[in-house]
Amino acid sequence: MSASTVSFQGERGAYSEEAATMFFGPNVRTIPCRTFKEVFQSVEEKSVDYGIVPSENSLEGSINQTYDLLLETLLRIRGEVKVRVRHCLLTVPGTSIEEVRVVYSHPQALAQCAGFLQKLGLETIPAYDTAGSAKMLIEKRLKAGAIASERAAEIYGLTVLKRGIEDFPENFTRFFVLGRVDVSSTGKDRTSIVFATTHTPGSLHNALGELASRQINLTKIESRPIRGTPWEYNFFVDFEGHESDPKVSEAIRALRSSTAMLKILGSYPRAD
Amino acid sequence: MSASTVSFQGERGAYSEEAATMFFGPNVRTIPCRTFKEVFQSVEEKSVDYGIVPSENSLEGSINQTYDLLLETLLRIRGEVKVRVRHCLLTVPGTSIEEVRVVYSHPQALAQCAGFLQKLGLETIPAYDTAGSAKMLIEKRLKAGAIASERAAEIYGLTVLKRGIEDFPENFTRFFVLGRVDVSSTGKDRTSIVFATTHTPGSLHNALGELASRQINLTKIESRPIRGTPWEYNFFVDFEGHESDPKVSEAIRALRSSTAMLKILGSYPRAD
Repeated sequence: MSASTVSFQGERGAYSEEAATMFFGPNVRTIPCRTFKEVFQSVEEKSVDYGIVPSENSLEGSINQTYDLLLETLLRIRGEVKVRVRHCLLTVPGTSIEEVRVVYSHPQALAQCAGFLQKLGLETIPAYDTAGSAKMLIEKRLKAGAIASERAAEIYGLTVLKRGIEDFPENFTRFFVLGRVDVSSTGKDRTSIVFATTHTPGSLHNALGELASRQINLTKIESRPIRGTPWEYNFFVDFEGHESDPKVSEAIRALRSSTAMLKILGSYPRAD
Repeated sequence: MSASTVSFQGERGAYSEEAATMFFGPNVRTIPCRTFKEVFQSVEEKSVDYGIVPSENSLEGSINQTYDLLLETLLRIRGEVKVRVRHCLLTVPGTSIEEVRVVYSHPQALAQCAGFLQKLGLETIPAYDTAGSAKMLIEKRLKAGAIASERAAEIYGLTVLKRGIEDFPENFTRFFVLGRVDVSSTGKDRTSIVFATTHTPGSLHNALGELASRQINLTKIESRPIRGTPWEYNFFVDFEGHESDPKVSEAIRALRSSTAMLKILGSYPRAD
């Protein structure tokens, strides 16, 4: 796939930018955005070709904001990519580990390295994002640490004091590639939909039955509250297959008639 | 219910403390803890009678950390309480709204007031918790704002500049009361369980079928990643009924034999 421009959230060196390069190849032009919402908007307004947003982390779970934005957008998920998250402790060159008292990073990165940080007795300060805290360190010449990727260290000229400081090595983040048009079937696809059930007992069970009865393999289900109606939920469901597959389109047709709301978020090649 | 001591996360004036008072009455002795984990530990180690932790917010969704801790604990959920979240903009007495440039609060509270803050062009700084940012304001005599409850304003002697600044008025947080022993059936109960499905297509659908086929009303389902095995999930499920009800105990027995893991978190009176 030859892409020209892809927006991502965060500063240069963010894991999202790495995901964009993995998916589109090294020649892609990546455009940093401050918020997830700006990533969606930049694709909607056609100022970029694609956007890339994290959907879930294998330790911390779903990125709620991405799901809430997916509900509202007309964009389609047209790809997924899984990035191995390998956190490093970075400092301004010349800072020794003994001089580091506080460590800056995104709250999720701090959480993923909690064991390492606690063992060294380091204080943590939550920051806007991982690469952003690396950038701030060099700009302010702080005698502190930042948790970010090795790539962030290269970009900002920081020293890698320690590599792979995450508590669980099996740490992956899955990203969605957003675009304005659908991708056709490859034979090894995944489809993402969101629906709201009706207020009858067993309605979620019945909805999932439309997939199960057709041997469609459910790979993820995520519930998000419906704003304005407490204790009611939208269900984001991923399953194997493309919406153009006869059994998938049949299941979606059946789901449409038995749910209160259904929206197809996209069908795209599986990354597993 | 006459309780002696209840631990909660945050500083005095936190919504969790309000939840404790709503559930146990005004004479309860509330004990602040720094982290959710400390709340669990204080009940496990019997240094308090009960603990109270948020489980979900009607706008922002589940509190992931609570669910991750519920998976590991031997404690039982023995109650639930729903608190209307009504955020206020607080300042040190004498500070006018024109002098406020930055606002401190918990990231979720900042998110819930994003519209209000944006309209006034206020910069936000994430803090450890809502009441904690109110406390810091008075301790440091900062010319800044904090978002917290009206009760926090009373406790710390702050001025309420504006009440009800949340973007959606239907803003509730549900809390779990944790204890060391079960509560018996009241006839209007809820049961919380967590299970992991087996790796066969339709396994979640089959599991939910054990509830649906017995007319047991599912009220919430939440998936959380299983640490160490990426893209596999535990399912936290709430449904109506008490584990001592014949049809509930029958459903649980059936679920135990068809799931890879099942744990009962507790049966408790419904708060709706």
